[in-house]
Amino acid sequence: MMISKVKNAMSTLVGGMMPHGHHHHHNHHSGGGQTCGPDSLPPRFPYGRPDFLDLTPELLQYSTEHASRPVLTLKRDSRLPWRTGYAEVINAGKSMLNEDQASCEKLFVKKPSGKHRNSTLQEDNGDGTGIPLHFWGVFDGHAGSGAAIMASKLLHRLIRDRLGEICHLLENPTGVPPICLAKNGSPYQAETKKGATQEPEDPDAISDSTVRFHMEKVVSLESLVMGVIETAFSQMDDLIEKEKTSYAISGGCCALAAIHLMGKLYVANAGDSRAIIIRNNEVIPMTNEFTPESERQRLQYLGFLRPELLGNEFTHIEFPRRIQHSELGKKMLYRDHSMTGWAYKTIVEDDLKFPLIYGEGKKARVMATIGVTRGLGDHDLKVYNSNIYIKPFLSCVPEVMVYNLDENKHGPDDVLVMGTDGLWDVTTDREVADAVSAYLSCCDPSDPMRYTLAAQDLLMRSRGVLKERGWRLPNEKLGSGDDITVFVIPLAGHESET
Amino acid sequence: MMISKVKNAMSTLVGGMMPHGHHHHHNHHSGGGQTCGPDSLPPRFPYGRPDFLDLTPELLQYSTEHASRPVLTLKRDSRLPWRTGYAEVINAGKSMLNEDQASCEKLFVKKPSGKHRNSTLQEDNGDGTGIPLHFWGVFDGHAGSGAAIMASKLLHRLIRDRLGEICHLLENPTGVPPICLAKNGSPYQAETKKGATQEPEDPDAISDSTVRFHMEKVVSLESLVMGVIETAFSQMDDLIEKEKTSYAISGGCCALAAIHLMGKLYVANAGDSRAIIIRNNEVIPMTNEFTPESERQRLQYLGFLRPELLGNEFTHIEFPRRIQHSELGKKMLYRDHSMTGWAYKTIVEDDLKFPLIYGEGKKARVMATIGVTRGLGDHDLKVYNSNIYIKPFLSCVPEVMVYNLDENKHGPDDVLVMGTDGLWDVTTDREVADAVSAYLSCCDPSDPMRYTLAAQDLLMRSRGVLKERGWRLPNEKLGSGDDITVFVIPLAGHESET
Repeated sequence: MMISKVKNAMSTLVGGMMPHGHHHHHNHHSGGGQTCGPDSLPPRFPYGRPDFLDLTPELLQYSTEHASRPVLTLKRDSRLPWRTGYAEVINAGKSMLNEDQASCEKLFVKKPSGKHRNSTLQEDNGDGTGIPLHFWGVFDGHAGSGAAIMASKLLHRLIRDRLGEICHLLENPTGVPPICLAKNGSPYQAETKKGATQEPEDPDAISDSTVRFHMEKVVSLESLVMGVIETAFSQMDDLIEKEKTSYAISGGCCALAAIHLMGKLYVANAGDSRAIIIRNNEVIPMTNEFTPESERQRLQYLGFLRPELLGNEFTHIEFPRRIQHSELGKKMLYRDHSMTGWAYKTIVEDDLKFPLIYGEGKKARVMATIGVTRGLGDHDLKVYNSNIYIKPFLSCVPEVMVYNLDENKHGPDDVLVMGTDGLWDVTTDREVADAVSAYLSCCDPSDPMRYTLAAQDLLMRSRGVLKERGWRLPNEKLGSGDDITVFVIPLAGHESET
Repeated sequence: MMISKVKNAMSTLVGGMMPHGHHHHHNHHSGGGQTCGPDSLPPRFPYGRPDFLDLTPELLQYSTEHASRPVLTLKRDSRLPWRTGYAEVINAGKSMLNEDQASCEKLFVKKPSGKHRNSTLQEDNGDGTGIPLHFWGVFDGHAGSGAAIMASKLLHRLIRDRLGEICHLLENPTGVPPICLAKNGSPYQAETKKGATQEPEDPDAISDSTVRFHMEKVVSLESLVMGVIETAFSQMDDLIEKEKTSYAISGGCCALAAIHLMGKLYVANAGDSRAIIIRNNEVIPMTNEFTPESERQRLQYLGFLRPELLGNEFTHIEFPRRIQHSELGKKMLYRDHSMTGWAYKTIVEDDLKFPLIYGEGKKARVMATIGVTRGLGDHDLKVYNSNIYIKPFLSCVPEVMVYNLDENKHGPDDVLVMGTDGLWDVTTDREVADAVSAYLSCCDPSDPMRYTLAAQDLLMRSRGVLKERGWRLPNEKLGSGDDITVFVIPLAGHESET
């Protein structure tokens, strides 16, 4: 994930703890407008790579070598649920540590027990009772790795706990959650009390409103799970904010999560990571990206409705380039929150402010600062040298797409690929699908490493190899200089699971 | 288009002038909270049907007979551009007059001449010079026909005039409009003045911002035309508001327009009308509908950011049904502006307010009042018996989709169908496509009436026939009781045009 360079250089250092347990405070950038947690605060979680990689301190150190950018993969004797494949590589130098994080967990959704009712976020006790839940998460940090690490440790537990609260409803044979719950969690039926509305006295209106009063929207179990995931992301974001008072939790992160529950795969995305399903070598996109370009209108609308958030420095109107003072009174192309096309407007003083959304493609930024518009953390992120907060423009709510796993047949080469933007910046969906399909078709279906090898192959394609002129792809184009993290998840995996 | 009954009964009467020139003020509903233009104001345009129908006063009177609902079509000796087919029918009694309106025009885009520079909205003088522009508009009025009639008379002229202002750019051989224009309309190039930014002094930041300063987004001619259409809709809406001080212009309307310019078809939609292209019996949707359900999140976001617009009567949170006072403290399903799924929340006092968005499908309403969220007019529309205006929640900006007519081959049975919601409520896209394809394939390709006959056939399918139990379709389902208006436009039409 990309954040403006100045910020980045300053802030990558704050969240990280180096492998051996030293704090690395060297190279502290001065003069930044951003407030970071006081140095005295301990990190919420120490820096590291995902637990399932099981790295020794030496290997962890080795993983941060920007010059060689070693590809880390799952060890041959490690085993993730569903034989999930995994590979990762550090960036080419834009930040000291790998700001990507990942998690892969099997958990069990249970009613909160007396003992744990108020102590959520526990590790799964693993007695194997409850509704099984599989979780894969990819977290692309920026301006430090604190938020990404914390999310990789806790988001799946939050989701499990929220699902636990509605556990008895998930097992409901009608498949329809009740609209209202009494305090003990059992369905509550409203009395049919005619005339209890606050509607006008007009007799027509009353009969009309009585009908409306009794309208009941049918909500599916699936949209209840979606709602749980959406609110769990918000709670994760709130938790980061809350714990920032006691811990150093640096930066923010894009969050992409896949959740398998009761035969369905929920893919939740907040940021610019991407997931696709490859089935029969066909691509089924499971995410949309949230960037200043894709969310332009939402952001402009907020700036328009709450101009004080722009701090008198920015204009919510978009222009195709900066305007010079000498151009006052001339006409310039623009578009506002309501427009998709462009029109001309006469330039006034206010239009000389910097545009809220500026730049194109990977270079598009919100308030000249951040290149992604959804994610977790970033509570303290400010526009450089100002007191303007970015957070109000960022959303922590993911878009959730659902794939019905049980209703489709899957072969061993049908997979879900989840990757941070480093992967997709240089390799298209189609290229990823072709590469995975080609790789897996040559690979023994019983090889426990096949999905990890496919992930490694994908990753190498996007990283390239180091030549005199930087990291290059076989076609001589520039490889990705970003951190890259990839999961390759076989969709037939849950069938083979014991 | 549907608006709550109470409102509707009151307001349908205000905008209409009956055929013979009497004002019909009988049946004035009292006690409505809505302010209508003083009775003394004259209507901006008298009530009537589209000019191209060329109705006699007797036929106009006949067209309003709710009992028989006669289908009006283009006369055999009339001819619209491209041999466009047209048919319409009045509703089954929900309003006295047909609140749908339509227009079909061939115009010419010209540089504003000295004489007309400040007097826009002129009729086309028809000397045949300028860039030809074809326009089809369908306007589905509610709470009176004033806005729909006015839009049907003026929107195409506004679009033509706005295009006239950029006429010299449309003929630009590079196909790229200049970013900045001097006062005389010629392209203006900014000086390359380094360091003229308002950026911080940090040398890195400056060089960075200098690069950004010189970023220029390339805007296509196509998105310039889209922007013109978007802004013309806004100006139409502003004009209605402005002229309401001098004229009685009742209600509001959905607006769907198709514009043919320089080989491209632009379909602009604000409301719940619909347009599809049928090509080789395949359906290409050219619109999305804008309803309380499809725009829920935009509306909730506005209510969330500007709670004063909800007048202490409504909550921006959605619930699957009304909440009773006795349910305070219990948990209920809800979703807010950021959510797609549903979750449980504990009910507090504020949740007892009426939800901003309420109801499902065709019955969904904004503030219990209006079932459509984009369109023109409605400036005075208020929540029944209150001082809460609906207009801030309505958008007058259309979504514009572009179809490249010149890049595709079209046979005589390939058409664009535009219809008000009355058509689509009971007939699916697929059924419309099958009906049109079947009808046209049996029809002499040289028959000048073939597209009108196809439109008539479509319309009858949605209206049905009057039986003892109301208007019924052949399958005994209820036909549409709404006004219905249909254009069937042959896509090969412009090739045959002289």
